[in-house]
Amino acid sequence: MSALAALLPLLALDRLPRTGWLLAGIPAPESVAAHSLGTALVALALGPRVRPALDVEHAVALAVVHDVPEALLTDLPRRAAALLPAGAKAEAERRAAEELLRPLAPEALALFHELAARETRAARFVRLCDQLHLGLRWLGYLREGARGLAEFRPGLAALACDEFAPCRELRDEILAAAGELERPRA
Amino acid sequence: MSALAALLPLLALDRLPRTGWLLAGIPAPESVAAHSLGTALVALALGPRVRPALDVEHAVALAVVHDVPEALLTDLPRRAAALLPAGAKAEAERRAAEELLRPLAPEALALFHELAARETRAARFVRLCDQLHLGLRWLGYLREGARGLAEFRPGLAALACDEFAPCRELRDEILAAAGELERPRA
Amino acid sequence: MSALAALLPLLALDRLPRTGWLLAGIPAPESVAAHSLGTALVALALGPRVRPALDVEHAVALAVVHDVPEALLTDLPRRAAALLPAGAKAEAERRAAEELLRPLAPEALALFHELAARETRAARFVRLCDQLHLGLRWLGYLREGARGLAEFRPGLAALACDEFAPCRELRDEILAAAGELERPRA
Amino acid sequence: MSALAALLPLLALDRLPRTGWLLAGIPAPESVAAHSLGTALVALALGPRVRPALDVEHAVALAVVHDVPEALLTDLPRRAAALLPAGAKAEAERRAAEELLRPLAPEALALFHELAARETRAARFVRLCDQLHLGLRWLGYLREGARGLAEFRPGLAALACDEFAPCRELRDEILAAAGELERPRA
Amino acid sequence: MSALAALLPLLALDRLPRTGWLLAGIPAPESVAAHSLGTALVALALGPRVRPALDVEHAVALAVVHDVPEALLTDLPRRAAALLPAGAKAEAERRAAEELLRPLAPEALALFHELAARETRAARFVRLCDQLHLGLRWLGYLREGARGLAEFRPGLAALACDEFAPCRELRDEILAAAGELERPRA
Amino acid sequence: MSALAALLPLLALDRLPRTGWLLAGIPAPESVAAHSLGTALVALALGPRVRPALDVEHAVALAVVHDVPEALLTDLPRRAAALLPAGAKAEAERRAAEELLRPLAPEALALFHELAARETRAARFVRLCDQLHLGLRWLGYLREGARGLAEFRPGLAALACDEFAPCRELRDEILAAAGELERPRA
Repeated sequence: MSALAALLPLLALDRLPRTGWLLAGIPAPESVAAHSLGTALVALALGPRVRPALDVEHAVALAVVHDVPEALLTDLPRRAAALLPAGAKAEAERRAAEELLRPLAPEALALFHELAARETRAARFVRLCDQLHLGLRWLGYLREGARGLAEFRPGLAALACDEFAPCRELRDEILAAAGELERPRA
Repeated sequence: MSALAALLPLLALDRLPRTGWLLAGIPAPESVAAHSLGTALVALALGPRVRPALDVEHAVALAVVHDVPEALLTDLPRRAAALLPAGAKAEAERRAAEELLRPLAPEALALFHELAARETRAARFVRLCDQLHLGLRWLGYLREGARGLAEFRPGLAALACDEFAPCRELRDEILAAAGELERPRA
Repeated sequence: MSALAALLPLLALDRLPRTGWLLAGIPAPESVAAHSLGTALVALALGPRVRPALDVEHAVALAVVHDVPEALLTDLPRRAAALLPAGAKAEAERRAAEELLRPLAPEALALFHELAARETRAARFVRLCDQLHLGLRWLGYLREGARGLAEFRPGLAALACDEFAPCRELRDEILAAAGELERPRA
Repeated sequence: MSALAALLPLLALDRLPRTGWLLAGIPAPESVAAHSLGTALVALALGPRVRPALDVEHAVALAVVHDVPEALLTDLPRRAAALLPAGAKAEAERRAAEELLRPLAPEALALFHELAARETRAARFVRLCDQLHLGLRWLGYLREGARGLAEFRPGLAALACDEFAPCRELRDEILAAAGELERPRA
Repeated sequence: MSALAALLPLLALDRLPRTGWLLAGIPAPESVAAHSLGTALVALALGPRVRPALDVEHAVALAVVHDVPEALLTDLPRRAAALLPAGAKAEAERRAAEELLRPLAPEALALFHELAARETRAARFVRLCDQLHLGLRWLGYLREGARGLAEFRPGLAALACDEFAPCRELRDEILAAAGELERPRA
Repeated sequence: MSALAALLPLLALDRLPRTGWLLAGIPAPESVAAHSLGTALVALALGPRVRPALDVEHAVALAVVHDVPEALLTDLPRRAAALLPAGAKAEAERRAAEELLRPLAPEALALFHELAARETRAARFVRLCDQLHLGLRWLGYLREGARGLAEFRPGLAALACDEFAPCRELRDEILAAAGELERPRA
């Protein structure tokens, strides 16, 4: 497939909103594409601090592809995924990844599979960066005056960060900063 | 459950965009709630013209609930649903309907089930009104200058309208009007 | 008039914002269409609880048409209507209803007239549902962090709900929930 | 009244969209405030070219206040105003002007009255600038790909510009430029 | 140059957001055009109160042109301007003013130069009105629930208003009103 | 500096629009963050096809940082940069990169410097990917009905792609597809 034919469907990532924020009442939430870029920046910030060392650029590449399937699947929020059969969302992502990333480059599809398998440190690290970017955005919206976002706190607090101290530190910083804001209640 | 607790989750319908239009590049597509209201208005317009007579107000009520499950599931476009197992979307809608409509009113849940079963004339009529409203919006966006919406034409042309002459007439009118616009190509 | 010609002007309901929220600073308020759908859902939720019994589907149909005139008149906020001669807004609505609903279906226009006359229980019930949906949206925006919406409270508190206990109960629930939020002052 | 109390209600002009464009499907039309600024710039561009000479700065000031009443009344499109009694819109504007501009500065209210009376050359000139800015925006939207805006052409073509040659010239330029675009039909 | 060719580039002022608010998280900040109109209204409100008397309409005209250069330069926030060489932004504004305002009318360019030179009372007055409108908008956003806008307070507090008592009074009113809101911390 | 303090300013990339499209009338253009993600995806698609081989993941990392300076500088369109002294924009980007990327990770700043120096193949390749993503977005907007975007064509046609055949091929594909659309004139 031509590069153009492979790339055009990915323009959708600019359009699709991060649905969780939309449902929480944020008027103009960031796009799926913006979230992916943010995840890559988190990987770039924390990656060099990880011990033992990670291949940071490899982590950045994993971050760049991690939500590409949403160009077909859209960003299904937690409550939506909960209505699907067990494993249906993950399988749908796999199919979407196949459809979108194989024509793009076999390397791109391999990145996605590595992320899905969670077997490498880089994959587990980037999956945390994904959640940490959500936490960063959460803090950002809280600082701008959004309320009623308490539902996002437990997931952040429960993130299993022990394998990567820089991730745990960032998560703790985010929770502390959120706690200092004047809105303890939803 | 209190009426308030049952009604608050439905505010999401105001927020969720009709995803197909979003992916097609329409900058600010109508919400799922607006589409449901439009479907109800199509039912109100065509219902009295149907022979033998329908209970038009019953059809209107069916239209009002038809996309309520999307408050949890979001509006999954065709290509997203195609990635899920056969029947998974319909089952997810059923579960969402149960979760959202049972607390609202048993009558509301019954309306949804009637629609899903397609066994009554009113249900089949309203399912057509749903597609006809999509066709109306399609024509509206084309008239405003949107291009690249050719993918929506085949579904409209293939709509099985024979049971309801007013539906077929409106569908034919929409297609004719779209054909007259100056953009025959995507 | 063809159904298409009657339906196309109603697409405007998707576009027109609920002006009161716009003026109060809500960045992307729901559309008139979304409000109408919400009013119909309130009718569906409360209607079955009303004693003596109401024809709930008839109430839902009343809700669906109640703001159709705004497709021509737009959603005039309170302060705007106050600048017009006594009765001018109601008369303008009547004219708009005539222009928009008669071609749609005589049944639709009859629904509007019933609502305007306030002589039936269903009409008075739906007029309350309209205000209750406004109250629900108000609470939703407050929960999301909006401030400066105190002007909407008195109208909700003063709603004459005595004829319909479920309406009074929902109104009281909304006020209580709003009171519990951390922003007692405008 | 304090200047703050007089100025705060005018922030609404930033929020209120130019409704005609909204109804015509323009996704994010300019605000009433932006239109007023544009009208003032048209006055500044054409004013110096008018013979006999006008007090251009006086014309600019007239333009700045001309839509202030919409902060209360909103921007009623033509079809909405047509539903009101003869003179009701003008009277509402007068009342809104009184309520908004008197506390601002007596000079501001005097500007509005001069504009409404149409007795001075400057007032008639600025009323044309208002319509010419609408024409400029129309051309801008057409150049960006909007369609279905043919309804705005007749009013522009019929503008009585003879008293001010620069106005007629600009109007003619706009119509010619619009005619050259590839969308002759709505 | 024709008036049309001179005016078309200024339509950009409707589109460009006031970037400071965008960066501060305001979802749909007012446009540069709306801010200019607001500045002109501040001049109209305070001008008549200034002693010795100002030519208020001349001040309004200065306000109308003050941000026209942004149609080419965009609204550079403080932190962006700080990255440019000393004087680069002012020079860029001068060049943009030359390019945009000379074809519009020599009078318009003269207004801009007067403002940039700060040598007349009217120019210094309007430069304060510009900042006061920013303060008004700041207060408006705070009243609507925005947080994290503390960075805008010091500039307002430090405004050198002594030459114009009405400016100082408005600035003090704004700060007092902001102080009364429930969000003392960023 | 803590990772949180380094990452929070980068949330601005989600907010800042790609200004060129805003000025060209696209109602809701993609954000700078979305463009960066898109550039990274172009690098991922074309990188593996480049001969001699590139370190594709290194190219992806270069793409991820390439517009980070805009979080302070904003996205200055061509006409704005043209008003600044020669080299001022590049120097401002360098300063912004220093301020934003050094605290993030020294690796991140090194990536930026590599890109700015254009001395490596990867850097030249990614600078082309940046322009190719703009071309992709241009084609996307044209396909959706936008007009008046002819100004973007010459830059794309003149792109010096000879060093990287896959870049030239994609550029040629984009131009061919744009040529086939029905809007040959601005």
